[in-house]
Amino acid sequence: MGRMVGPILERFLSTDEVLAVFEPHAFVQAMLDVEAALARAEAAEGVIPAAAADAIAAACDARAFDLDALAADGARAGSLAIPLVKQLTAAVRSRAADAAAWVHWGGTSQDVIDTAMALCTRRAHALVDAALARLADAALDLAAQHLETPALARTLMQPAQVVSFGFKLVAWAAPVVRIRARLARAAREGLQLQLGGAVGTLGTLGAAGPAVARRMADALGLALAPGAWHTQRDAWVALGCEVGVLCGALGKIGTDIALLAQGEVGEVTEPSGEGRGGSSAMPHKRNPVAAMIARAAALRAPARVAALLAAMPQAQERGLGDWQAELAEWPGLWIAAHGSASALAEAVAGLAVDAPRMRANIEALHGLVFAEALSTLLARELGKARAHEFVERLTARVLAERRSLCDLALEAVAADGTLQGRVARDAIAAVFDIEGAARRAADVARPQLAALRPHRQDRNPA
Amino acid sequence: MGRMVGPILERFLSTDEVLAVFEPHAFVQAMLDVEAALARAEAAEGVIPAAAADAIAAACDARAFDLDALAADGARAGSLAIPLVKQLTAAVRSRAADAAAWVHWGGTSQDVIDTAMALCTRRAHALVDAALARLADAALDLAAQHLETPALARTLMQPAQVVSFGFKLVAWAAPVVRIRARLARAAREGLQLQLGGAVGTLGTLGAAGPAVARRMADALGLALAPGAWHTQRDAWVALGCEVGVLCGALGKIGTDIALLAQGEVGEVTEPSGEGRGGSSAMPHKRNPVAAMIARAAALRAPARVAALLAAMPQAQERGLGDWQAELAEWPGLWIAAHGSASALAEAVAGLAVDAPRMRANIEALHGLVFAEALSTLLARELGKARAHEFVERLTARVLAERRSLCDLALEAVAADGTLQGRVARDAIAAVFDIEGAARRAADVARPQLAALRPHRQDRNPA
Amino acid sequence: MGRMVGPILERFLSTDEVLAVFEPHAFVQAMLDVEAALARAEAAEGVIPAAAADAIAAACDARAFDLDALAADGARAGSLAIPLVKQLTAAVRSRAADAAAWVHWGGTSQDVIDTAMALCTRRAHALVDAALARLADAALDLAAQHLETPALARTLMQPAQVVSFGFKLVAWAAPVVRIRARLARAAREGLQLQLGGAVGTLGTLGAAGPAVARRMADALGLALAPGAWHTQRDAWVALGCEVGVLCGALGKIGTDIALLAQGEVGEVTEPSGEGRGGSSAMPHKRNPVAAMIARAAALRAPARVAALLAAMPQAQERGLGDWQAELAEWPGLWIAAHGSASALAEAVAGLAVDAPRMRANIEALHGLVFAEALSTLLARELGKARAHEFVERLTARVLAERRSLCDLALEAVAADGTLQGRVARDAIAAVFDIEGAARRAADVARPQLAALRPHRQDRNPA
Amino acid sequence: MGRMVGPILERFLSTDEVLAVFEPHAFVQAMLDVEAALARAEAAEGVIPAAAADAIAAACDARAFDLDALAADGARAGSLAIPLVKQLTAAVRSRAADAAAWVHWGGTSQDVIDTAMALCTRRAHALVDAALARLADAALDLAAQHLETPALARTLMQPAQVVSFGFKLVAWAAPVVRIRARLARAAREGLQLQLGGAVGTLGTLGAAGPAVARRMADALGLALAPGAWHTQRDAWVALGCEVGVLCGALGKIGTDIALLAQGEVGEVTEPSGEGRGGSSAMPHKRNPVAAMIARAAALRAPARVAALLAAMPQAQERGLGDWQAELAEWPGLWIAAHGSASALAEAVAGLAVDAPRMRANIEALHGLVFAEALSTLLARELGKARAHEFVERLTARVLAERRSLCDLALEAVAADGTLQGRVARDAIAAVFDIEGAARRAADVARPQLAALRPHRQDRNPA
Repeated sequence: MGRMVGPILERFLSTDEVLAVFEPHAFVQAMLDVEAALARAEAAEGVIPAAAADAIAAACDARAFDLDALAADGARAGSLAIPLVKQLTAAVRSRAADAAAWVHWGGTSQDVIDTAMALCTRRAHALVDAALARLADAALDLAAQHLETPALARTLMQPAQVVSFGFKLVAWAAPVVRIRARLARAAREGLQLQLGGAVGTLGTLGAAGPAVARRMADALGLALAPGAWHTQRDAWVALGCEVGVLCGALGKIGTDIALLAQGEVGEVTEPSGEGRGGSSAMPHKRNPVAAMIARAAALRAPARVAALLAAMPQAQERGLGDWQAELAEWPGLWIAAHGSASALAEAVAGLAVDAPRMRANIEALHGLVFAEALSTLLARELGKARAHEFVERLTARVLAERRSLCDLALEAVAADGTLQGRVARDAIAAVFDIEGAARRAADVARPQLAALRPHRQDRNPA
Repeated sequence: MGRMVGPILERFLSTDEVLAVFEPHAFVQAMLDVEAALARAEAAEGVIPAAAADAIAAACDARAFDLDALAADGARAGSLAIPLVKQLTAAVRSRAADAAAWVHWGGTSQDVIDTAMALCTRRAHALVDAALARLADAALDLAAQHLETPALARTLMQPAQVVSFGFKLVAWAAPVVRIRARLARAAREGLQLQLGGAVGTLGTLGAAGPAVARRMADALGLALAPGAWHTQRDAWVALGCEVGVLCGALGKIGTDIALLAQGEVGEVTEPSGEGRGGSSAMPHKRNPVAAMIARAAALRAPARVAALLAAMPQAQERGLGDWQAELAEWPGLWIAAHGSASALAEAVAGLAVDAPRMRANIEALHGLVFAEALSTLLARELGKARAHEFVERLTARVLAERRSLCDLALEAVAADGTLQGRVARDAIAAVFDIEGAARRAADVARPQLAALRPHRQDRNPA
Repeated sequence: MGRMVGPILERFLSTDEVLAVFEPHAFVQAMLDVEAALARAEAAEGVIPAAAADAIAAACDARAFDLDALAADGARAGSLAIPLVKQLTAAVRSRAADAAAWVHWGGTSQDVIDTAMALCTRRAHALVDAALARLADAALDLAAQHLETPALARTLMQPAQVVSFGFKLVAWAAPVVRIRARLARAAREGLQLQLGGAVGTLGTLGAAGPAVARRMADALGLALAPGAWHTQRDAWVALGCEVGVLCGALGKIGTDIALLAQGEVGEVTEPSGEGRGGSSAMPHKRNPVAAMIARAAALRAPARVAALLAAMPQAQERGLGDWQAELAEWPGLWIAAHGSASALAEAVAGLAVDAPRMRANIEALHGLVFAEALSTLLARELGKARAHEFVERLTARVLAERRSLCDLALEAVAADGTLQGRVARDAIAAVFDIEGAARRAADVARPQLAALRPHRQDRNPA
Repeated sequence: MGRMVGPILERFLSTDEVLAVFEPHAFVQAMLDVEAALARAEAAEGVIPAAAADAIAAACDARAFDLDALAADGARAGSLAIPLVKQLTAAVRSRAADAAAWVHWGGTSQDVIDTAMALCTRRAHALVDAALARLADAALDLAAQHLETPALARTLMQPAQVVSFGFKLVAWAAPVVRIRARLARAAREGLQLQLGGAVGTLGTLGAAGPAVARRMADALGLALAPGAWHTQRDAWVALGCEVGVLCGALGKIGTDIALLAQGEVGEVTEPSGEGRGGSSAMPHKRNPVAAMIARAAALRAPARVAALLAAMPQAQERGLGDWQAELAEWPGLWIAAHGSASALAEAVAGLAVDAPRMRANIEALHGLVFAEALSTLLARELGKARAHEFVERLTARVLAERRSLCDLALEAVAADGTLQGRVARDAIAAVFDIEGAARRAADVARPQLAALRPHRQDRNPA
C-alpha cells in the first residue's frame, strides 16, 4: 500500500515519480526541512542558540510523525502547520528541553507551508523538465529522419496541401523547447522562499530578518523574494500558468497523434509491447495511450489554472479559503503535466511512422491538394479569377470521374485556346510533384530544426 | 497509514468519510461489485452457468487484489479494468477453472468503471445529503430563535438597512433545502447503470441484454438508462453541475460568516474548542475555519465543473482522454462539497450570535440606515425630489456633527414651514424604530421559514 | 450599423436572432418593461395612483433613451439602473409632474436588472428550444432512414465493431431531447421575478408587497420566487449549468461530424451551397462549419459556467463584483448555445451520408472488427483463453498477409484437430456478416427511437 | 449609437477606450492593415507589382466595407477573412483591374485574422500598461505618505498585528510593477506576425517568404516568429495568462479596498463626486465602485484564461472550433483588465484614508494584537510554554473585563514571583507601542518602496 498515492483514477494518468513528490510523507518532510533550515539560519545569525538549532534539525524526520493525527488536528486548527509545530516541539523537547522553545521561532504557518510547497514543486519541475528534454529530443530526431517524407497537411480537419512529416514534427517540438525555457524562467521567478512571520513583517526576527531569509533561501535553493508574498501570489501563479500552457501544447501533440493513428489514416502508431494500449475485448486494437494521457491533461489543466487565478484576490495579510484552495489545486497541475510529458516522450521516441501510408493518403486525393498551386500557375496567363474558375471546373470533374487533377489539367491546358503552348507540360507536372512539395516544407523546417538542435547539443555534450 | 487517503492539502479541507468513499480500495471493490452483479444477472438470465456466477462473485473481494500492480498495468493498458479483469480471471480460475471463461462476459472496461463510479457517488451523495440536512436544520433552528433580532443588512459591502438575523438565516437555509431536493433529483437521473459492451450495443449478450441490464440496475440500486451512455454524459455531468451549484451556495454562507466574524463587526463567532481555529502565533485569534473550508470549496468547484463540461464532446463510441479526464476530476467535486457542508453544519449548529453587537452596529450608524424610510415619509408632503434633498442635507449633518438622524429630523421638521404640524413626531420616531424594522423583516421571513420547516418535520417525525 | 451587435468574432459563431435578444436597446427595453409592470402592479394594489402608473408605462420606451449616457453614468454609479431611473423620472415628469415621484417606487436596481435579464433570457431560451427541436427532428428522421445502414463504431479513436449509422444518430438525438426537457424545467424554476426592494424585504411596499409581486410575475410571465434571490442565485445558475451541459452534448455531435467528415473517412459531409465552408485558397475543400461552431461553443461554455458558479458566494444582501460579473458572463452562454444548436440543426438536416463509404471503411479492416465475435464463438469449444490465443494468431496474419480474417478463420478451423467439424462454416460466416451486425445495432436503437419520436409527434400533431 | 460597443453589462465594467480597440470597425481595419502591409512587403521583395500594392493599400479603408455583409457571409464561410478578401478584391478591381489578382497573395485567412488580433492587442496592451503605471504611481505615492501610519494587519479575516498602511500599499503596488514588466515581456514574445500561407509553409511566396515576413513584421511593429504559429499558440496564450494574473492581483487590491471601506471598518473610502457610487435608495451610501469592477474582472478572467488554454490542442495545421473559440474569448480578457486597472488607478489616486479610524480600530482591540510580542518578551524568563500560558490567562481577562492587555500585564508581572523586577515596565510598555510597531513595518517596506520607485522615476524623468 505504501506507494498507493493519490486517487486511483488520477494516478493512472500520471507517473509514480511525480506522485511521490507530493505524497503526504514527502510534503510533511518538506515542511520539516523548512523548520530545520529556519532554525539553522537563525542560529547562524545568533537569533537562537546553535544547540537548539541542532536539536531541532535532528528531530525533523517525517518518519517519526503521526500523519493521521496531523491531518485530523490540522483540519480542526485550520492549518497543517499548527499540529506539525506541536508534534515537532514535543519531539525536540524529548531530546533537549531547552531547545523546544526555539522551534518555529519567528515563523508562521504560511511560511512553512508555502516554502514546503515550493520545495516539492522544484522537484516536480525537475521531473517535468527532464521529460520535456526527452520529448523534444525524440521529436527532433524523428524530424531529422523524416524531414522530406511527404505528408498531408490538414486544416479544419480536412486535407489541405502536401508538407513533410518532419515539418510537422518541428512544429510539435518548437513549443516544447520554448515552454521548457519559459518554465525554467518562471520557476526561477516563482519558486521563492516564503518568510514573513505572522503578518509579513518578520516581526519577531527584527533586524536579523533579512539575513535569516537570505541564509534560508540559499540553503533551500529557492529565490529570495523582495518581501513576504503571503497574499501576493503573482510569480507563483504565473508559474502555474506556464504549466497550463505546457499541458495545452502537449495536448496538441496528443491530438495530432490520435488523429494520425486513426484506422482510416494509419500514418503513425504508438509503440506497443508490455500491455500497452491493448483491448481485452478487441484483440486487433492498439489504443493510443499516450495521446489519451496528453489529451486528458490538456482538459484538466485549464480548470486548475482557473482555480489558481480565481484564488488570487486574497484578503489583506492572509487569505481565508483562497490560499488553501490554491494549494490544494497546485499539485494536480504538475501531476497531470508530468504524466503527459512522460507518456509523450515515450510515445514519440517509439513512434512507428508509416511513410508509404502517408504517401498513399496524398495520392488518394487525386492531386486535389495541388489545386491552389495549379491555380497560381495558371493565374499568370488567365488572371486570378479566371484561373480559379478554370481549376474549379477541373476539381469538380476529379470528384465525378475519379481521375487525377494532373491528367485533367494537362488535357484541359492542351485544349484551351489561351493556354496551349503558354503553359508547359513540365510546369504543370512540377505543380503536382509530391516530393517537391515535401522538399519545400523541409526547407522551411530546416532552419528551425537547426535552431532547436543546438539547444539539444548544449545539454548532451557527449 | 491505512487512512492516509488523498493529497494532504485536500484532505485537510474535507472529511475522512467522503475520502474513504473514493479511496483506491473502495473504488476497486466497487468495480468488483459490478463484476459480481454482472455475473449474477447473467446467470439469472441463463447467459452463463449459475456455478460460474457463484465462483466469480466469491472472488470479488478487493482485499485479495494487488492494487499497485493494478495501477501500473492500468497505466500501460490505458484502462484500469483490463488488469482488474486479468487478476479477477486468475482468482476465479484458481477456484473453478471452468468459471474463469465467464468473467466480465459481455462487459467492457467502461461499463465496469462508470458503474463503479456511480456506486461510489451514490455513497458520496448520501453523505452530502445528510450534511445538508444537518446544516438546514441548524440554520432554520437558529432562524426561529433570531427571527426578530435586529441586524444590519449590507449591500455592496456597505451598511444598508435594518433586517433581522433570522431573515438572513432563512436566506442561507432556503438554497440549501432547494439544492438538497434538486441534488436528489439529479442523483436519481444521473446515477445510472452503465452497460453497453464494447460499442454500446450489448453485442455479446444479444437478446438477453435488456433483461440482464434490468437485473443489474435493480441489484446495484442504480437507474436503468435507455441505452449505454458511454459518450452521452449529460445526466451524469448535470449531477456534477448541481454539486457545483451547491458549493457556490455554501460559499455564500461561508463568506457571510467570515464577514460577520470580522473583529470590527463581531456579530457571530464560529464554535471553538478542541483546537478549532486557533493560532499558534496569536493567542487571541479564533479563525473561522468552517468559513475557510466553504470558501475554498466554492473556489475549487467551478473549475472542476468546467473540466467535466469540457470533457463532454467525447468522440464517437468511447472518448480518448476526455472520458478519463472526467473521471479523474469527478471525486474531487464531492470531496470538496462534503467538506464544505459538514464544516458549515457544525459551525452553524454551534454559532455564537452576539445580538447586542448587532444592535450596536446599527446604532453606530446614527440612524442613517433609515434615511430612505424618512425620505419616503416626507415625500408625502414634499414630493419625492424635495424630500430627497431635505434628507440629504440632514445626512450630511449626521456625518459632520455625529448626531443621530432622528434627532436632526425632529428638529428640522419642527423648524420647517411646510412640515411642522403635518408630520407627527411619532411618525418620525416610528421610522427610526429598530425593532419595528426587524419585525417587518421577520414578517417576510416567517412564511418562508414555515415552508422550509415542514420539510424538516417530515424527516424527523419524532 | 444598427445590427452590428456584439464583438465580431463572437457574432460569427452565433446567430443574429439571439444576439438581438441581448443587445443594448433590447436590454434597456426589458428594464423599462419591468418598471412599467412594477408601476401597473402597484396601481392595481392601490400603492400608487393609477394615473401615475399610466404615465410611467407610457414613458417606458427605450427608443427615447440616451443609451450612451446610460452606460457612461452607469459606470460611475456602479449600476445601470440608477441612470435609467433618472432618465425615466425626467421623461415621466415632462408628461405628468405628479407621476414622477412614483417611478421605481419600492424597487431597487437589482430588481430591475435581474428581472430584465430574466425576460431577455426567456426569449433566448425560446430560440434555443426551437433550434433543439429542429435538431432532434433532423437527427431522428435521419436515424429512421439509416437505422440499418452498416457503419463502424470507433472507440478511443480506433475502429472497434460494426453498428448502424442510425444507432449513432439516436445516440446524438437522445441527449438533445433529454436536455431540451431539462432546460425547460430549469427555465421554469430559474426564470423568476426579482422583487425585494433595497435589502430583500420589500420594505417600502409593506403589506402590499406579496400581492404586487404576484401581479408582476403574472404580467411578465416569470415564476414567483419564495423571496428575493438577490444573493441566492442557485436556481438561476442551475439554468446556466444546463446551457453548459447542452453545449457539451452539442460539442459531441460536432466532434463526431468533424471526425466522420475527414478526407480519409468521408462518411458524412455538411451541406454546402451559398458560400458555406468554402476555402479561398483550396477550391476542393468543404469545411465542416457547423462542427466548427459547435466545437467552439463547447470550448467556451465550460469557462462561462465556471464564472457563474465562481460568482455565487455573494456577500450578505447584495454582491460586490460577483453579481455584476455573473450578469456580464450570462448572455455569452446563450449566444454560444444558440449558435451551436442552429448550426447543427441546419447541418444535420442537410447532412450528406455516404453509405457505400461507410461500408468500404468496414471492409478495409479485413474482418478484424469481428475478432471478438469470432473469439466468443470459438470459446464454446476451446475455452476463453485458448480461443483468444487462436484468434490473436489469426489477426496477426491478417495484418501481415492482408487477407480477410474470415477466410483465415475458415481455413484454420478446418485444419484444427479440435475444431474441425465442431464449428460450422455457416456459423463462422455469420460472425462476419456486416448487415447482421448492423441489424443487431438497429434492434438496440429502435425502441429508443420510438421513445424519442412520440415526443416529436406530440409537438407536431399535424 | 456609434459608440455603443459590446454588451451593455460588459461595457459597464470597462472603459470606452479599450472597447473601441476591439469593436468591429477597428478589427476590420486591422485586418485591412494586414492586407496592405502584406501587399507592400511583397512589392518591396518583387513578388507583386508595386502598382498593385499601391492600389491594394489605397482600398484598405474599413469605412468603405459592409460589415453586416461581412459578418453574415463570414458565418457561412466559416471565416471572416474570406468575405473580407472578396470585398477587398472588388474594391481594388474597381480602382485597378490588374491589381485585383494580387490581393491577399500568398496569405491565408488565419494569417490575416491572427495578425489583426495581434495589432488590436498591442493597442489594448498599451492602454493597460498606462493604467498600471498610473495605479502603481498612485499606490507608491500614497505608501510614501502613509509609510508609518499605524494600521491593523488582518489574517484569515481576523485582526492580527499592527503594521503600517504604507506597508500594505507597497504590497499592493509591488505585484502591479512586477506584472507590468512581465506583461511587457509577454507582449514582446507573444505579439507576433502570423504569416504561413495555407498550411504554414508560405508555399506561394517560395524563397521570398522569409524576407516578406521580416518586412511585414517591421512595418506592423510585431515580433517575427520562427515559423507560422497557426496551431502553436504557446506564446500567445502565455500573454493571455499574464492578463489573468494581472486581473487576480488587481482583484486583491479591490478586495482589500472593499474590506477596508466597510462601514464597521471605515479606514478608506473611494473618491466620490460626479455620481460615483451613489445609491438611489440609500442617500448615505457610497459604494466602492472601483473595488466592484476589480472584483468582477478577477472573477471573469480565470474562466477566460481557462478557455484559451482549453483551446490549445488545435488539430494538425489549423484548428476546427478551438482556434475560433480562442479568438472569441480573447478581447474580453483585455476589456476586463483595462476596466479594472483604470478604475483602481482612479480610486487609489483619490483614496480617502482615515488614519484616526485605523488607530481607533487598533485600540478597540485592547492590546490583544500584541499578545504574541508579549509572549515573546516573557519567554526569555519563563520559557515559551509557560509564557504562552501566562499570556493566555491575561487575554481571557481582557475579553471578560474589557481592560487593556498592557495594564493587565503590568499588574500581573509586578505580582508574579518570578517576573517581578526581571521584566522592566518600560519593556512591557514598548511591546504595546503602536507607533513602534508601525515603524518596524515601515522599515520592512522602505527598501521595497525605494526599489519600486526608481522604476517610476525612470519613466517620468521630468
